[in-house]
Amino acid sequence: MTAPGLLEHITSPGDLKVLPDSALPELAAQIRRRLIDVVSRTGGHLGPNLGVVELTIALHRTFDAPHDAIIWDTGHQSYVHKMLTGRDGRLGQLRTAGGLSGYPCRTESDYDIVENSHASTALSYADGLSRGFQLTGRGRRVVAVVGDGALTGGMAWEALNNLGASDRPVVIVLNDNGRSYDPTVGALSRHLRQLREGAACSNVLVSLGFGYIGPIDGHDFKALHRAFGRARDQDGPVVVHVVTRKGKGYPPAEQDEADRMHSVSPARTPTAVVPGDRKPARSEAWTKVFGGELAAVGEERSDIVAVTAAMRLPTGLGPFGERFPHRIIDVGIAEQHAVTCAAGLATSGLHPVVAIYSTFLGRAFDQVLMDVGLHRLPVTFVLDRSGVTGPDGPSHHGIWDVSLLRGVPGIRIAAPRDAIRLRELLREALAHEDGPTVLRYPKGDAPLPVGVHTRVGPVDLLTAHRPDAQVLLVSSGALATVAVESADRLASMGVSVTVADPRWIHPVAPELMSLVADHRVVITLEDNAIGGGLGAALSMAAHLEGLSSRVIPLGLPVEFVPVGERATLLSDYGLDADHVVDTVLAARWRRGSKHAAPTLVGS
Amino acid sequence: MTAPGLLEHITSPGDLKVLPDSALPELAAQIRRRLIDVVSRTGGHLGPNLGVVELTIALHRTFDAPHDAIIWDTGHQSYVHKMLTGRDGRLGQLRTAGGLSGYPCRTESDYDIVENSHASTALSYADGLSRGFQLTGRGRRVVAVVGDGALTGGMAWEALNNLGASDRPVVIVLNDNGRSYDPTVGALSRHLRQLREGAACSNVLVSLGFGYIGPIDGHDFKALHRAFGRARDQDGPVVVHVVTRKGKGYPPAEQDEADRMHSVSPARTPTAVVPGDRKPARSEAWTKVFGGELAAVGEERSDIVAVTAAMRLPTGLGPFGERFPHRIIDVGIAEQHAVTCAAGLATSGLHPVVAIYSTFLGRAFDQVLMDVGLHRLPVTFVLDRSGVTGPDGPSHHGIWDVSLLRGVPGIRIAAPRDAIRLRELLREALAHEDGPTVLRYPKGDAPLPVGVHTRVGPVDLLTAHRPDAQVLLVSSGALATVAVESADRLASMGVSVTVADPRWIHPVAPELMSLVADHRVVITLEDNAIGGGLGAALSMAAHLEGLSSRVIPLGLPVEFVPVGERATLLSDYGLDADHVVDTVLAARWRRGSKHAAPTLVGS
Repeated sequence: MTAPGLLEHITSPGDLKVLPDSALPELAAQIRRRLIDVVSRTGGHLGPNLGVVELTIALHRTFDAPHDAIIWDTGHQSYVHKMLTGRDGRLGQLRTAGGLSGYPCRTESDYDIVENSHASTALSYADGLSRGFQLTGRGRRVVAVVGDGALTGGMAWEALNNLGASDRPVVIVLNDNGRSYDPTVGALSRHLRQLREGAACSNVLVSLGFGYIGPIDGHDFKALHRAFGRARDQDGPVVVHVVTRKGKGYPPAEQDEADRMHSVSPARTPTAVVPGDRKPARSEAWTKVFGGELAAVGEERSDIVAVTAAMRLPTGLGPFGERFPHRIIDVGIAEQHAVTCAAGLATSGLHPVVAIYSTFLGRAFDQVLMDVGLHRLPVTFVLDRSGVTGPDGPSHHGIWDVSLLRGVPGIRIAAPRDAIRLRELLREALAHEDGPTVLRYPKGDAPLPVGVHTRVGPVDLLTAHRPDAQVLLVSSGALATVAVESADRLASMGVSVTVADPRWIHPVAPELMSLVADHRVVITLEDNAIGGGLGAALSMAAHLEGLSSRVIPLGLPVEFVPVGERATLLSDYGLDADHVVDTVLAARWRRGSKHAAPTLVGS
Repeated sequence: MTAPGLLEHITSPGDLKVLPDSALPELAAQIRRRLIDVVSRTGGHLGPNLGVVELTIALHRTFDAPHDAIIWDTGHQSYVHKMLTGRDGRLGQLRTAGGLSGYPCRTESDYDIVENSHASTALSYADGLSRGFQLTGRGRRVVAVVGDGALTGGMAWEALNNLGASDRPVVIVLNDNGRSYDPTVGALSRHLRQLREGAACSNVLVSLGFGYIGPIDGHDFKALHRAFGRARDQDGPVVVHVVTRKGKGYPPAEQDEADRMHSVSPARTPTAVVPGDRKPARSEAWTKVFGGELAAVGEERSDIVAVTAAMRLPTGLGPFGERFPHRIIDVGIAEQHAVTCAAGLATSGLHPVVAIYSTFLGRAFDQVLMDVGLHRLPVTFVLDRSGVTGPDGPSHHGIWDVSLLRGVPGIRIAAPRDAIRLRELLREALAHEDGPTVLRYPKGDAPLPVGVHTRVGPVDLLTAHRPDAQVLLVSSGALATVAVESADRLASMGVSVTVADPRWIHPVAPELMSLVADHRVVITLEDNAIGGGLGAALSMAAHLEGLSSRVIPLGLPVEFVPVGERATLLSDYGLDADHVVDTVLAARWRRGSKHAAPTLVGS
């Protein structure tokens, strides 16, 4: 039965179709070995892909991609699809700059249709694509693979409402592993379990107009082929309910109750991944600092409740949830609901903390604005993974939150520079009862603490404010370390620099504007799209107030930032000491062209 | 049976509870007469409120508000609730500055819990409130009244998924009139019809864990009281399915197939409202210009498709839909899905036009960014009701769209100043195939055309660019008329002014920046929150480029703009010729304090 080179010979789904059924288990085994081998080294989404090996093979044997469009919801379950569509050889460069994306990617392959990775979008794409194919007469089929977790997202419901009433041949493969990241919560999950167990009196999907085939064992090739074949031959919309096991075939993943190794970081040793290795052992990861402090505040204040959209552990809510199981609310992949549910909690007199990745807050802007902001409710949003995140690519960088949230009247936004400030600002946020507050911090570890020299209003001066300083560096959050390093280097060149961390980056404190007015050149550093952040606010304010200070905002351009290591990307975009020093030194010349040249260098 | 003063004696729900059942029909009749009388004069939502008269009376007789929280989804169905909670006397000032809000309003009454009006939020509030009441041990009940249309919104599904799995006593009153604005579309609507007709084999709500009581005739007091009483006494979440008739009791509304007089404008004569009066007879309403032009383009290009989220007629898609019934897609109240469905349509090779009110686009920011923007798909968004809208109040002003959308890489945003430019810019947008485009225009009628003097790149100069002009007015969209009037008045004072309409307000054209550089004082006028719009972009750019030009942005503050007439509100916020003229004249003095004083006034 061993056929060492089976996988190597699959360069397209065509190769797959000519394989005898008897070869498929060995192919699946080879795929799993390779997934484990590669993802241990590169990091990435292991559990979800181990769960869909047979499903993906059977799909590509049944349908005719790319003529038929196969869409992967939350595309991190597409590694097997990539391996079967000519990209197995490049899998070793997964999630690296210039390598394979961790999600579908149209520039990689015609087999990839949709390349972003926020959950619950696939059915809406499928609705639009199938309407388009119908109008253009192309007769192509649309297959959408969606997890049970993603079905808790509201836009999936909006799409079901449209697809269920249609007569278009859309095949929904419901990949039901009973969990998104956390175990899937809610009424739908209970209903799917009843369907799996044959205990349901009715079927919601049938009531909504779908054909229903299932439940199917997602690791049984014969059953999968039969089910997908029937689905392919139906005229209207149909759901194939496939039951899979996340992490299937890899004991450490199967036994990992927490998340079945949903996502792993590169292992310290390239030979194996064990659960304990997934997070670096350092004690000061942002997420962990937040989680510990929230649990501590929870002991002191019974009005604190935590809300998560299916991300209890990744957002650091584990300790809080263990101590206060009745005060943590997991609403499923449902960011809109999370925010408005928090508004309801606040209306009842509690102070909710919504812990969410920055990139997912865009799902709930209207709710933050209208349901929390308009009502001036005390809700604290804690945005993990703000700014440049790294290998998850364009859809996971959290570079829009400041620009979005600054538009919410009455909101206050803080960016802690280190663990000490995160604890402090969290408490300040939780003490604020007149409208929403936001804390934002990036992925990874908090820098070592950067002490305060003087606090002026809310603003921390990180250096002495020397009267002769003509340069002010204003850093947002963790970029304080870059600012301090830049100041040290400039000082050694004889350029006197003041470094300020506003802590609360919105609204702009009058004390910060006074500092701006007191310096000739002001460089702002922030890990947010530049047009809508702190630098934009300060440059506009300096202009409107007619200050002679020149503000130079450093941040991210309004672009989709590619995959890459966080430190590398920050450098690429000029958010490092080299660039700050160069910018300061160049500013005297640049200013000189239009204004009177300031004397930046001492004496 | 006539009891002329019945309504006048109801000052709180307590008064309602002591009325004998026999008096209720007369009370309902009085409420309807008063609704028709008042709303004919003030304008507002007539049909929805005529439909919920008996429902609202029965709710307030059964539950104990405000101890029990009653939440109205899309709060425009709360007029009867207002009349029964002490505000009948002020109904004549409905939707006027300083008068009663057209939505629930917490400063008006303790009976109002949630005051915004975007659809589908009530169940999420109810989930949060009921969780809060449970945690704080207050034992209060939560009642959410939600229309069948609002249930097509994804966040309602997210809430159902949470509520259905709970054991909290939340009563959902499903006000099923078979339509939101347009007849409700989709699989759920079909299922509800089956439930109404007793033809359903199963019940989706029961499958999701809800108790179900219904269907109930929403105009039968006895049935309503019995159903609400049963619901009140249940321990878990329960849905009361109430079938109402929108516009009930007012023949012109009942017979109006288009929208059952969902919303009416103040009548020309205060004695009656007839459907034909609802829209002014002028030919150049923005919405109508758009609708006519889109239909014309539709004749020429078969790849144009239109997408609406339950707002076919209000967004002007009527003519297009009549000519091309297969090329218009109404997805229900489902903005997220509308956008990603459009992404799917574009992926299939079509060019979708998503017609939507500006205020509702906030529901779909993530989808615009990731599903359309990241994929650089040719989707045209047409934002009606951008900027200050008027009597619908804070949640309906469209003052965030520019700030939000500027953050989407590759997007292009146009603001037509008149009907000619709307037609022209729509065609330019539809010719753009590399990424999304946006058109924004306000509510009401387009101003009379403002001719172009010279076109420089995409920028229209509306006056000659005289070399001696030191003042540049840059107007966005319809505010061109204010700019031109201001320029005329300034010219009569000897101040030479250039007026430019960029037409495409984002990204900023180099030709516009050249104009900025050529003038000492630049005033921008825009109908958008000031921190994120055109003025912010130009002032930041002027600052970064070290221009000596002073940019003074006029626009709306980052505040929730209250109810008021559009023209009045624009004046209140300085967007009129008086303020522009004053600003120009003052600028020479303000500049003088920090810069060398420019000589603005001729000679």
